[in-house]
Amino acid sequence: MFTSDCLGNDNGMLTIGGIRVDDLVKEYSTPLYVLDEDTVRNNIRNFKKSLDENYEKGMVLYASKALNCLELCRIANDEGIGLDCVSAGEIYTALTAGFPAERIYFHGNNKTEDELEYAIDNNIGVIIVDNYYELDAIEEIAKQKKKTVKVMFRIKPGIDAHTHDFIRTGQIDSKFGFALENGEAYNAVKSTLDKENLKLIGLHCHIGSQIFDDQPFMEAARVMMKFYKQIKDEFSIELDQLNLGGGFAIKYLETDEHIGYDTYMKEVATIINDFCKENALKVPMILIEPGRSVVGAAGITLYKCGSIKEIKNIRNYVAIDGGMGDNPRYALYESDYEVLIANKLNEKADYKATVAGKCCESGDLIQENVVMPKPEKGDIVAVLSTGAYNYSMASNYNRIPRPAMVMVKDKKSRVIIKRETFEDLVRNDI
Amino acid sequence: MFTSDCLGNDNGMLTIGGIRVDDLVKEYSTPLYVLDEDTVRNNIRNFKKSLDENYEKGMVLYASKALNCLELCRIANDEGIGLDCVSAGEIYTALTAGFPAERIYFHGNNKTEDELEYAIDNNIGVIIVDNYYELDAIEEIAKQKKKTVKVMFRIKPGIDAHTHDFIRTGQIDSKFGFALENGEAYNAVKSTLDKENLKLIGLHCHIGSQIFDDQPFMEAARVMMKFYKQIKDEFSIELDQLNLGGGFAIKYLETDEHIGYDTYMKEVATIINDFCKENALKVPMILIEPGRSVVGAAGITLYKCGSIKEIKNIRNYVAIDGGMGDNPRYALYESDYEVLIANKLNEKADYKATVAGKCCESGDLIQENVVMPKPEKGDIVAVLSTGAYNYSMASNYNRIPRPAMVMVKDKKSRVIIKRETFEDLVRNDI
Repeated sequence: MFTSDCLGNDNGMLTIGGIRVDDLVKEYSTPLYVLDEDTVRNNIRNFKKSLDENYEKGMVLYASKALNCLELCRIANDEGIGLDCVSAGEIYTALTAGFPAERIYFHGNNKTEDELEYAIDNNIGVIIVDNYYELDAIEEIAKQKKKTVKVMFRIKPGIDAHTHDFIRTGQIDSKFGFALENGEAYNAVKSTLDKENLKLIGLHCHIGSQIFDDQPFMEAARVMMKFYKQIKDEFSIELDQLNLGGGFAIKYLETDEHIGYDTYMKEVATIINDFCKENALKVPMILIEPGRSVVGAAGITLYKCGSIKEIKNIRNYVAIDGGMGDNPRYALYESDYEVLIANKLNEKADYKATVAGKCCESGDLIQENVVMPKPEKGDIVAVLSTGAYNYSMASNYNRIPRPAMVMVKDKKSRVIIKRETFEDLVRNDI
Repeated sequence: MFTSDCLGNDNGMLTIGGIRVDDLVKEYSTPLYVLDEDTVRNNIRNFKKSLDENYEKGMVLYASKALNCLELCRIANDEGIGLDCVSAGEIYTALTAGFPAERIYFHGNNKTEDELEYAIDNNIGVIIVDNYYELDAIEEIAKQKKKTVKVMFRIKPGIDAHTHDFIRTGQIDSKFGFALENGEAYNAVKSTLDKENLKLIGLHCHIGSQIFDDQPFMEAARVMMKFYKQIKDEFSIELDQLNLGGGFAIKYLETDEHIGYDTYMKEVATIINDFCKENALKVPMILIEPGRSVVGAAGITLYKCGSIKEIKNIRNYVAIDGGMGDNPRYALYESDYEVLIANKLNEKADYKATVAGKCCESGDLIQENVVMPKPEKGDIVAVLSTGAYNYSMASNYNRIPRPAMVMVKDKKSRVIIKRETFEDLVRNDI
């Protein structure tokens, strides 16, 4: 029933981090995002430990686009990891949280010049260069400011993780990065070597999201290492770092297979370590960028059940007091979620329902074909594994304020993002 | 090339409301939402005029979920129309803008008790009741507060506008409203007649969005009038108002057919007026709820072109400095948009491109298969017909601040929604 160890059942009532959700609802109202701090920290620590066990040097970068806010940046800092940021806004948040600039890696397919300047002014650790336009812009800004900017290149390794058969055209058809097979990546590396204000420290690749299969990760590592060897052979340089990106799947449904990140880490490490040994390369520092796999299963969203419509021979609609505004992932991708009547965990689940949001839009659904105990108005509806890409994608559609987010730890809860107010909605209106 | 009369070509440069977009970009930067005030006002006036010509009494309600902000509420008030609001947040915005409460109609499939109380406390004109739970809640709140609340019911008329063949199961399968065919609507009306604190003033139906065909609108009017007759026959009451909802299509593409709202209004009016005459019914006051058709084609979004990636034999990616954060409609619905290189209107369009946003997500595209003049970094990219469901659906995905919105009128421009700042992004973070 549960997708995360932080969830429990206290006499039929869902708990998270040992706190009954009815107590959270009483204190903070609904809709409410709840995050379990231990789960977040343990996920980070497990990735760190895996890197430590498998490589001489490694660093976890939390892919903060999954959930970027002050408190998450503080936790990432506290755990001693780095941060993957994808906009000046994410960098601003990190810096405001006191996150050290040198451990921030700046990503994006179309960073604006303002963003690049902001990053360079703030001595952001590394910029992952996506394209030639950016490379030129960074060089120019760095020159003007008399700085040396550490860069990596985002490489398309020619692997399509989602079809599971490494289709090259599939992968080359991406808005991200330099392609390997047509020489783009090679030329990018070459062109950087004599640039005074740029220091190329490594390469980055990212093959997709929510990937269950280990094979594409292993194939990507193989492709990248071959390219590292080519760079050593032709330019006599050994790059310091290799950033393998993220994309590690999480359990959205109880029926999703268990994901052994350790196995994946070991398999990929074997490929990299063996390749380096066989080819007399030094093993680069390995970076990974988990986002969803850090916060996804640590989070749940709590709603109250409102109107229930039983349409004979068609379906039952169960309406909640939130929807696509706070969680647009079903509307966008028809994403799977486990949905529970949180106060009826011990009741028989034999009622099939479509869980609908309160937005004036037919497509505002959270999940279809959910089997749950018969719901009643006022029940607490919990959607599981909503820690990633929920708050971060939330809108004010229908001018509905975005929910608060509460962090639970040691059976205590605290607000880490305040609920929006009506005043917030018109704050920028003139 | 253009989807609205407010757009023009000044020596190859796109204009809106007579202002060159390069001047707007210079003054306000990008991404930028731009709205033409005359178009908004003319759209409202045309709907009003049509109602006046076709009925004894009518009222336009602007469906503000399409674009709800202080200035739009002021304009709606200034034009003397009513407002369709779908949340307490929309109502709050309207009231803050000085919009008269009595001309606000409150919609929604799952209004919370807090929202209902807020609406009743503020003497909102009419609540469109969606379901029995709501009916009970309104009655209780009204009793407590010793008020009489004007209500309408949202009815499912059993018409599916999108399949064009009035499939009943299709339409009954909706999270909105009381179904007609199973007696739900009849029972709702009946149950209200003896309720002291509720005054039933009419019924509402809404058959979909972006509907090009007149037939479903006509069919809906027929169905509703038959029900009005039934109500008169059985309960000896004639309802004052009939709210026919919205759903009027707009031109997203130049190739979209011209939409004759006038024709639709006449056709529907003939059905209603004839039916009333034949059946000795008084013609109710007719309400319509245009949203998209008021603001959609009045708006454009301006971006700057960033990186361009030409992937041989596959496709060309043209990246802009915005994306699914400010316009999620392609990601959500694969919506069509006209995309122009705004500073190259006189150049030959022979370059096929995918217009991609700057979010770290492969699905962050604004449009595919656009034929445009060969773009260069720094070009101004204009996406047309973005006045509706763009700002209102915008998020801070990737912590990108939401763009400013500028209103143009008499060749002058003014900010109506300020650009979000980095400070705004962390305002509610603790």
